Amino acid sequence: MKDVAVIGIGMTKFGELWNKSIKDIFVEAALKAIDNAGVGHIDSMYVGAMSGGLFVGQEHIGAVMADYLGMNPVPATRVESACASGGTAFRQAYFEVASGSSEIVLAGGVEKMNDGVDVTAALATAADQEYEVYNGITFPGLYAMIANAYMHQYNATREQLAAVAVKNHHNGFNNPNAQFRSEITIEQVLNSTLVADPLRLLDCSPVTDGGAAVILCPLELAKQFTDSPVKVISTAQASDTISLYERESLTSLKAVSDAAVKAYKQANLKPEDIDLAEVHDCFTIAEIVASEELGFFDKGCGASAVEEGKTSIEEGTIPINTSGGLKSKGHPVGATGIAQVIEIYEQLTGQAGKRQVKDARIGLTQNMGGSGASCVINILEAL
Amino acid sequence: MKDVAVIGIGMTKFGELWNKSIKDIFVEAALKAIDNAGVGHIDSMYVGAMSGGLFVGQEHIGAVMADYLGMNPVPATRVESACASGGTAFRQAYFEVASGSSEIVLAGGVEKMNDGVDVTAALATAADQEYEVYNGITFPGLYAMIANAYMHQYNATREQLAAVAVKNHHNGFNNPNAQFRSEITIEQVLNSTLVADPLRLLDCSPVTDGGAAVILCPLELAKQFTDSPVKVISTAQASDTISLYERESLTSLKAVSDAAVKAYKQANLKPEDIDLAEVHDCFTIAEIVASEELGFFDKGCGASAVEEGKTSIEEGTIPINTSGGLKSKGHPVGATGIAQVIEIYEQLTGQAGKRQVKDARIGLTQNMGGSGASCVINILEAL
Repeated sequence: MKDVAVIGIGMTKFGELWNKSIKDIFVEAALKAIDNAGVGHIDSMYVGAMSGGLFVGQEHIGAVMADYLGMNPVPATRVESACASGGTAFRQAYFEVASGSSEIVLAGGVEKMNDGVDVTAALATAADQEYEVYNGITFPGLYAMIANAYMHQYNATREQLAAVAVKNHHNGFNNPNAQFRSEITIEQVLNSTLVADPLRLLDCSPVTDGGAAVILCPLELAKQFTDSPVKVISTAQASDTISLYERESLTSLKAVSDAAVKAYKQANLKPEDIDLAEVHDCFTIAEIVASEELGFFDKGCGASAVEEGKTSIEEGTIPINTSGGLKSKGHPVGATGIAQVIEIYEQLTGQAGKRQVKDARIGLTQNMGGSGASCVINILEAL
Repeated sequence: MKDVAVIGIGMTKFGELWNKSIKDIFVEAALKAIDNAGVGHIDSMYVGAMSGGLFVGQEHIGAVMADYLGMNPVPATRVESACASGGTAFRQAYFEVASGSSEIVLAGGVEKMNDGVDVTAALATAADQEYEVYNGITFPGLYAMIANAYMHQYNATREQLAAVAVKNHHNGFNNPNAQFRSEITIEQVLNSTLVADPLRLLDCSPVTDGGAAVILCPLELAKQFTDSPVKVISTAQASDTISLYERESLTSLKAVSDAAVKAYKQANLKPEDIDLAEVHDCFTIAEIVASEELGFFDKGCGASAVEEGKTSIEEGTIPINTSGGLKSKGHPVGATGIAQVIEIYEQLTGQAGKRQVKDARIGLTQNMGGSGASCVINILEAL
C-alpha cells in the first residue's frame, strides 16, 4: 500500500454564481488544482456531487466533467454520500493511488444549488424518503431536534450555539473564497429569522454554488511537483442509521465517533495531537456535537468550549473551521469535503494568510452526510 | 498491489417489482451475495445507482443501504456513471481491496425505475443537459442516429440489428432472473412499434427494477471462502465526449476501445483470448458497435457476425450476452454492471445451466454510460 500525498489545490469562490454553469464551476476549480500542482496530466478523476439530477438535471457528472475539462479518455467517476460526497471523492482517489493503479488523480467536488429548484426538498433526499421526508421533515427540522435535545440534556444555551456562527464568520472574513465575508454578533444570530426552533437563519449554512479540487499522487513522487507535499495519514468512513429517530441518542453522532476512532488508529494519533480541524457545521449544533465525537471535548462540553474560545484561531487549543466553515465559507454540498481538505492544505503549508494557525502540522477534516448517516474523516500531515 | 477475487454473487429477479422498494431490492441482492460468499461480515460496501433522486426521491443511497442491510457502521459509498454505475461500483471495490485498505468488500448496484416517474426524461440526464437534452434528444434518438449512420456506412441491414435481440431473448429464456423469458423472431422485431427510426420496441432494453451484488476479497484469502474463486485480471475505464455530436465518428465508441486497450494490456491478453463477454446492449446497435470496439470483429463486421451466429452460445466463436443481456434480462441501470459480472462468474464456475459456455475460462464485461461517454471493462479468470 503506497503512501499518498496532496500536491495541489484549487477552488472557485463560493457563493451565488449566477453567471457560471455547473461545468464552468467544476472546470475552474479543477484547472486551478492542476495548475497549482504543476502536473502535465492526470490519470483519473473523481467528482463528488450530491444530486446533479435534482439540482441541475444533469447526472453522469464524472463523464461530463472529464469532457469539459478536456481530459478524455481519463476515467471519471462521480461519488455521492449526500453532503459528504466530497469526502468520499477524496477517499476514492486515495484508494486508487494507494493501490498503485494510478499515479496522478484529481479529487473534486461541485454543486450548483441556486438554479431555481426547491433546495430544501432536494436536500431532503439525503434523509429517509419513506419514514422521514414523507412525513414532512426537513434538514433544519432534523438538526433543530438535535439542538433541542442537546440544550435540554447539557443545559447548553442559545448564546453558545450562536457563538459557533460568530466564530466562523470571523474566520471567513479573512477567506477570499468565502460566500459571506462579514463579521456577525451573538445578538444578530439571536435576532435572525427563526427557521426551525431553536435554529435561526444565522445558525444555518447557506445555499451555495461552488467547486473544489485537489491533486493526489504517491508520496514517493510528490517532491517532483512541490517542495511542500502534505501526506494523507488516514482516511476513515462510517455509517449510521439514515433516520434520526432510530438513534439511541439524539445528541450523539455515532458515524463521527466510529470514523474518528478508525482515523486516529490508522494515524496512530490522539485527538490532542490534532492542530486544527475543519468540522461539518451545516448547522451550529452540528459543529458542537461533532467536535465532541472527534474527542476534542467531553460530551456536553462542546458548546461551552466554543463560548470560551477554545476553538478560535487566536486563543484556541483546537482551532475549528479556520476557513469560515460551511456557515460562512458556504456549503455547495458536493464540494464541501474537498474544500475542507484545501483549508487544511493551506494551513499546513503556511498559505492561510490572516487565518494562519501557528505551527500547524497535523490537520483533520470531518465531512458528514444527512443528519449524520455517513461521515468521512481525513487526517493530513505537513512534511 | 494485491490480487483481487470475486467469491460470491447475488441478484434479484429483474422486472417490474411493484411490491418491493429500492431498499428491499438492494438488500435482497446483497444478502444473497453475502450468503453465497459465506462471509460473516463485510468491511466496506459500494452501491452503483444512476439517479435515486429522480427515480425514487432518495439520494444518500450508500448510507441508506448500509442501514437497511444491518451493516452500520460499515463505510458505504454510492458511485454513479449513468448506466455504467454498476461497473464503476465494482471498480471502486476493486481499488479498496487491491490497496490493502479492506478485505471483504461488497460491490452492488440497484435501480427502481417503475415507480411512476418519466423514465425517458430521467435517463436523459445521462446526456448533455445543455446541448442535447434541452434540444429534445432522448436515448432511443441518440442510438437511432448511431444505427442509421452504421447501416449507411457499412450496408448493415435491419434484420442484422434484429438478430441481436433474437439471440439475447434466446439466451435470456434460460435465465431464471431475466425480465423477459420469451423467444422472439426477426419478424417480431421488425413488426414491433417504431420508437426512433430505425429502432423499434424490440431493439430497446426495457425499464427494469432490480439489484445485484458481488463480494470481493484479496485473492490470497479467497480459498477460505470458496473452492472456485474468480480472479479479477483487469479493470479499466475510459471517458469520451458526453455529447454524440462532438464525436469524430458516429459509428465508433471510443471510450469502449480506449478502455479495451487498457484492459487487454493489464491482463496481457488479446481479444481472441476471451471466451465470452457480457456487452452493453441497451439497444441492439450498441452491442454491434461495442463488439467491434472490443476487438472481437473488424469495424463494420459486427452486424453480420451476429447474423452468422458468431456470438451465439451454441456455435459462436465469442458468445455475447449469454445472460440475455440488457435486452432480455433487463436493465436496472445501476445494477447492470454488477449483473454482468454475476453472469461471467456463473459461467466461469460452471453454474450457468442451459446457458453454459463450454470450457469458459476467461470472461469480459463491458458496461457503458450514456451514448458511450463512459465505459468500464472488467476481465475475470477462473482459477
